[in-house]
Amino acid sequence: MSAHPRLSMNQATIKYAPLDDALRVTAEGGYESIGLWREPVQAVGLDEAARRFADSGLRLSTYCRGGFFTMPEGQARRASIDDNRRGIDETATLAAAGAAGSTPVFVLVAGGLPEGSTDLVGARSRVADALAELAPHAASAGVTLAIEPLHPMYASDRAVVSTLGQALDLAERFDPAVVGVTIDTFHVWWDPEVLPQIARAGATGRIATYQVCDWNTPIAADPLLSRHEPGDGVIDFASLTAAVEATGYDRDIEVEIFNQEIWDAAWPDVVARTARAFEAAVAPHLRASVPA
Amino acid sequence: MSAHPRLSMNQATIKYAPLDDALRVTAEGGYESIGLWREPVQAVGLDEAARRFADSGLRLSTYCRGGFFTMPEGQARRASIDDNRRGIDETATLAAAGAAGSTPVFVLVAGGLPEGSTDLVGARSRVADALAELAPHAASAGVTLAIEPLHPMYASDRAVVSTLGQALDLAERFDPAVVGVTIDTFHVWWDPEVLPQIARAGATGRIATYQVCDWNTPIAADPLLSRHEPGDGVIDFASLTAAVEATGYDRDIEVEIFNQEIWDAAWPDVVARTARAFEAAVAPHLRASVPA
Repeated sequence: MSAHPRLSMNQATIKYAPLDDALRVTAEGGYESIGLWREPVQAVGLDEAARRFADSGLRLSTYCRGGFFTMPEGQARRASIDDNRRGIDETATLAAAGAAGSTPVFVLVAGGLPEGSTDLVGARSRVADALAELAPHAASAGVTLAIEPLHPMYASDRAVVSTLGQALDLAERFDPAVVGVTIDTFHVWWDPEVLPQIARAGATGRIATYQVCDWNTPIAADPLLSRHEPGDGVIDFASLTAAVEATGYDRDIEVEIFNQEIWDAAWPDVVARTARAFEAAVAPHLRASVPA
Repeated sequence: MSAHPRLSMNQATIKYAPLDDALRVTAEGGYESIGLWREPVQAVGLDEAARRFADSGLRLSTYCRGGFFTMPEGQARRASIDDNRRGIDETATLAAAGAAGSTPVFVLVAGGLPEGSTDLVGARSRVADALAELAPHAASAGVTLAIEPLHPMYASDRAVVSTLGQALDLAERFDPAVVGVTIDTFHVWWDPEVLPQIARAGATGRIATYQVCDWNTPIAADPLLSRHEPGDGVIDFASLTAAVEATGYDRDIEVEIFNQEIWDAAWPDVVARTARAFEAAVAPHLRASVPA
C-alpha cells in the first residue's frame, strides 16, 4: 500500500486503536507520518511509547493535545498548566524518537467558558495568560505550541478561540518557533477572512500544522463527531490547500476525523480510505514534490 | 400584563399561533411591538392581515423573511428574486398599517451552498448580486433590507453570510436606509470582532434591527431549534446590548426563538415568560427611557 508522502494519519481518526495497532496500520498503509494522541501514549508509558514509535519508522507530525486553560486562577488552573508542561515534554520526547522530518508540535485547544460563566472576554484573556506562562517551557523544550481555532459552534463548551485571526493575534506576542497555529479546514472553511488570514499566518511563520477533514450537514447529533473524509462534504480544499501551500508550508498534512461510523470501521480500511480521500481531494492542490 | 416598551415579540417564538392569535396574545401580554412572519400573513392574505394588524395597535419591528438567493442564474433564482420583491411590498404595507414607530425592515437570510456545490466564494458573490438587484425596489418601497449574518454552523445549508463584518461589507455598497443588517445575539455572540463591528454598524447607520436570544449547549439535535430565552444560556447580553445602545439604536428589540419546547408551550405563557426574560437579561442594559 502507498500513501501521499505528506499525508499523516492523525490517531484520532482511528481512535480505538491502541498505540501499537495505530503505528502498525499506519505504516502498513504506506504512510510516513502520524499525529499521536496523549491517551494511547500514556497507556503504555512515555518511554515505552517513544521506543515503539521509533521502531515504527514514522515521523511525528503533531502531538494532541493540550490546552483547556480558560478557568480562573486556582487549583484546577494549576493542574492544567502542569499537565500542559508535561504535554510539552512528551512532545519533545516523541518528536526526537520519530523519523527525520518529525515536527515537535503540541496542539492546543483553548477550552470553553467555565461552568456558569458568560465572561467570554475574560476566558479569552486567560488563554493569553496561559500561553505566556507556557511559552518559556515550550521554548526550552524546542516545542511549538499550535493554537487551534475551533469552529464557533464549540465556542461555549470547547474552545473560546474561534477564528484564525484571533489565534494569530494570540500567537503574535511570541516567537513563531514557540507559538503558532493549527489550521484545520473543518474549523475555518466558513470564515470570510480565511484566505487572507492563512496568508498572514504564513507570512509570519505561524502555520505549525495543517489538518484536513470535511464539513457536511446535517450536523451529527454529537457535533464533535460531525467530521468527514475530505471530499465527503462541502469544503473547497482547492482554495484552502493552495493558500496554505502558497505560504511555503511544506510539512505533513494530517487527516483528523471524529466520526462514530469511521471509528467503528476496521482500522486498515480507514487508513486506506483516508489515503484515497486525501489523494483525490487534497493532493491535486499540493505543489509538485521536489526530489530532495 | 405589561412588557418593556421596546420589547417586540418575534412571531417565530410562538410559531404555531395563527396571525390573529399572535396579535392577540402579544397585545394582551403588554407588548407594543411584533415582528411578523410571511407564512401566517399569507395564510389570511396581505390586505386582511394588514387590517387585522392595524386593529391590534401593535408596531411592526420587522417582517421575516426573505433572501435565499445563492443559487446561480436560472428559473429558481428568478423565482427567488420575484418572491423577495413581493416580500418587500408586503413589508411596506404592514409597516404602514402598524402603529406609529413601525419600522419597514425586511430580514434577509442569504441561503446556503447550492446542492452539490463547494463554491462558497461564488455563493457569497451571488448574495451581493441579489442585493444589487433588489435595492432599487426596496428604495422605492421605502423598505430597509436587513442582511442577517447567521452563526457559522449554518454556513453550508442556511446562510453563507456568517459574520457581522461580512454583512456590513455587503451592506456598505448601498444607502443605509435601503440595506442594513440584523444583529441577532445568537448568531454573533462568539465573534471576537463583534463589539467593534457593532460600533461600525452603528457609525454607518446600518443596524436595522437588534434581536436577542441565548446560546447554550448541548446544541439541539436540530441545530435550528437550539435557541433559548435570554438568560438561559451563556451569552453576555450586557456587553452586546450596551454596544448596540451606544450607537444610538433606539428601535424595538425582538426576541426570536426557535425551540421545540417553547413552541409546544401555551402562547400566553411564552409571551409572559419572554417579557420576564427580557426584563431580567436585557432591559438593565438599555438606556433609561426618555419621555417623548
